[in-house]
Amino acid sequence: MIKINENYQKLQASYLFSNIAKRVSAFQQANPDKKLIKLGIGDVTRALPDACVKAFHAAVDEMANDATFHGYGPEQGYDFLREAIAKNDFQARGAQVDADEVFVSDGAKCDSGNFQEIFSTDITVAIPDPVYPVYVDTNVMAGRSGNWNEELGRYENLVYLDGNRENGFIPELPEQQVDLIYLCFPNNPTGSMATREQLKQWVDYARANKSLILYDAAYEAFVQDEDLPRSIYEVEGAREVAIEFRSFSKTAGFTGTRCAYTVVPKSCMAYTEAGEAVSVHSLWNRRHTTKFNSVSYPVQRAAEAVYSSEGQAQIKELIAYYLNNAKYIREKMEALGYECIGGVNSPYIWIDGKTDSWAFFDRLLNEAGVVCTPGAGFGKCGEGYIRISAFNSFENVTEAMERISKIL
Amino acid sequence: MIKINENYQKLQASYLFSNIAKRVSAFQQANPDKKLIKLGIGDVTRALPDACVKAFHAAVDEMANDATFHGYGPEQGYDFLREAIAKNDFQARGAQVDADEVFVSDGAKCDSGNFQEIFSTDITVAIPDPVYPVYVDTNVMAGRSGNWNEELGRYENLVYLDGNRENGFIPELPEQQVDLIYLCFPNNPTGSMATREQLKQWVDYARANKSLILYDAAYEAFVQDEDLPRSIYEVEGAREVAIEFRSFSKTAGFTGTRCAYTVVPKSCMAYTEAGEAVSVHSLWNRRHTTKFNSVSYPVQRAAEAVYSSEGQAQIKELIAYYLNNAKYIREKMEALGYECIGGVNSPYIWIDGKTDSWAFFDRLLNEAGVVCTPGAGFGKCGEGYIRISAFNSFENVTEAMERISKIL
Repeated sequence: MIKINENYQKLQASYLFSNIAKRVSAFQQANPDKKLIKLGIGDVTRALPDACVKAFHAAVDEMANDATFHGYGPEQGYDFLREAIAKNDFQARGAQVDADEVFVSDGAKCDSGNFQEIFSTDITVAIPDPVYPVYVDTNVMAGRSGNWNEELGRYENLVYLDGNRENGFIPELPEQQVDLIYLCFPNNPTGSMATREQLKQWVDYARANKSLILYDAAYEAFVQDEDLPRSIYEVEGAREVAIEFRSFSKTAGFTGTRCAYTVVPKSCMAYTEAGEAVSVHSLWNRRHTTKFNSVSYPVQRAAEAVYSSEGQAQIKELIAYYLNNAKYIREKMEALGYECIGGVNSPYIWIDGKTDSWAFFDRLLNEAGVVCTPGAGFGKCGEGYIRISAFNSFENVTEAMERISKIL
Repeated sequence: MIKINENYQKLQASYLFSNIAKRVSAFQQANPDKKLIKLGIGDVTRALPDACVKAFHAAVDEMANDATFHGYGPEQGYDFLREAIAKNDFQARGAQVDADEVFVSDGAKCDSGNFQEIFSTDITVAIPDPVYPVYVDTNVMAGRSGNWNEELGRYENLVYLDGNRENGFIPELPEQQVDLIYLCFPNNPTGSMATREQLKQWVDYARANKSLILYDAAYEAFVQDEDLPRSIYEVEGAREVAIEFRSFSKTAGFTGTRCAYTVVPKSCMAYTEAGEAVSVHSLWNRRHTTKFNSVSYPVQRAAEAVYSSEGQAQIKELIAYYLNNAKYIREKMEALGYECIGGVNSPYIWIDGKTDSWAFFDRLLNEAGVVCTPGAGFGKCGEGYIRISAFNSFENVTEAMERISKIL
């Protein structure tokens, strides 16, 4: 008899976005003439940079000709892209990352979901709250959690790292020992950003405890403050204890084009039951080459173009555009008397709604025709907050804030 | 302490292709002027069909404009592609598959590697021998095998379905009960093709034993004989017990472009420990939406173009070209007195070398400058055989066969 992975039975249905969709649809049916402005899902809205489009077309043309056609590429990605990444995203900022430590993939969601596979199911996992749900769900599926505790609103056996007003949504070190630690900065959903000193505490913790940090830096392009780290490898010692996830999705508008990468330093170690060190790089390489067959060649060429001088200027403009939206949203909400996190060094503004998340969501939807995301959907610590995303046109953002200002 | 998934320690290093690469490289150093002809790896060599190229370019242009830009798509793939697949690949052949049973992905390798995740680690897995190594390795990683048994040349606790001259490399039903069954037709590596009646035996077995079949039909486009099934869903009852993997890789030259799909009928069930039926479709949907973020939009548009009348004519020509190579190789080898499987309804020719696999490989390499794949690399039952692939230009294929004819 074919038996299921019973861990799937523990998963709570992800009601967040379907619940939002239901409420939005009900509103639209009741108000067919009202224009909705969506500042909910974290999806980019502006076209691919011109440099990427040109490279994309050129590579498609290569595929159209036997002589320049590309079949299977190296599973880890083409050298041209791995080298451009290592050089521009790391070495240029003084962080030591070699091209062969870069694994190109089709998405940071996939990588952050899959990476846990190479570790024992018998480890303690620490995840932030509020959190990007993929970190939690993939560990539940793998059997690293206990059951869902309805009363706590959490899974048993996971260690939750609380974000709250007091710590500015930068979690403190846990009291109990943890083995695998998920961190995300600039944070999704809160927009909070850790300093070099705060990351250093985590790196030191991981070194002292032989833990491993999975550092999600998918939003690093939004960091503008030169004092803030854009990579965990700007922190001393991180190469021994941290993996970093990056993506072209938010940096260059690749959410529908699909390209990302993961850095796995050769100096990162994990351990056998007997305490023998094993290279995390070699484990991930085995996983990656066995279950993945690289990213579309034209997409890799489009991603490479991000690093051309034309591409760099274009993504700078793209990021500045969204950051200008974010600044505008934050200023307006603060002027209305709401405390905000993010919106600086991040495309997300995390707003203390001074009421419960869904009530605030409903008010913005029904009275202003603006869709946001209720913070409670990201975990217990998100209750009372909403997330507004800066991914939209400036015209829509200003109109949304005008409407919101009228009703609050 | 971060502990590794110790199942990875059981994995045997995949020496096959690196071993081939080493021997090829040694030959090239010793014979710098000799032109090598590679008929080894199963990778296509001809350009993308023109219809796909056009659709690819048009979709890249959509991404270049805010008004037509595509961000995140549905994780399961766009409806336009799912509907084209269901209609053309199944319904048109009388097989009942609905669009929402089609999950678009970036590769059949990924899908056939990932699908096992939704099942218990406590099931018995049957895999063919010779075999596409991904089926084996991903189950070893998940902990469904015992250790590697050096003497047997196999992993403990997996059930191997022997292919051999007697059964024409179409395995018989196993003697012991198995829960998850991997089948691949047209077969990689042997090129063997099961009849409807042979598949019916497996479907009946799975129904009787509440087993599930993972049917890899990545090479179905090569099936020309109208009496042979191109999908397992052409067999009665298969919708209750079979998943099917398909790919645009070999059908339309997408190995470097990346697009595939998996069919999961809503009537397929797996079971809890307590015997309660759970929809495999809902389990896979949960896995797919949690760990995957769909395929590049322009790539999905390129794949859709395969189903246009222009695209259909072009892939027909593409497949006919490779099949003509295959026929030529098989006829030449048979004329030389070698028994062959495949080469008809398949791009692979599986040849009884009448000596050990590596010796035959070395002879073709060193005396004829032709690279093939030693059958022993695909499992114990492959010993004594080599695989020659038809993926190359007809000019190279004829030259290779001329050289081989001279030395054998």
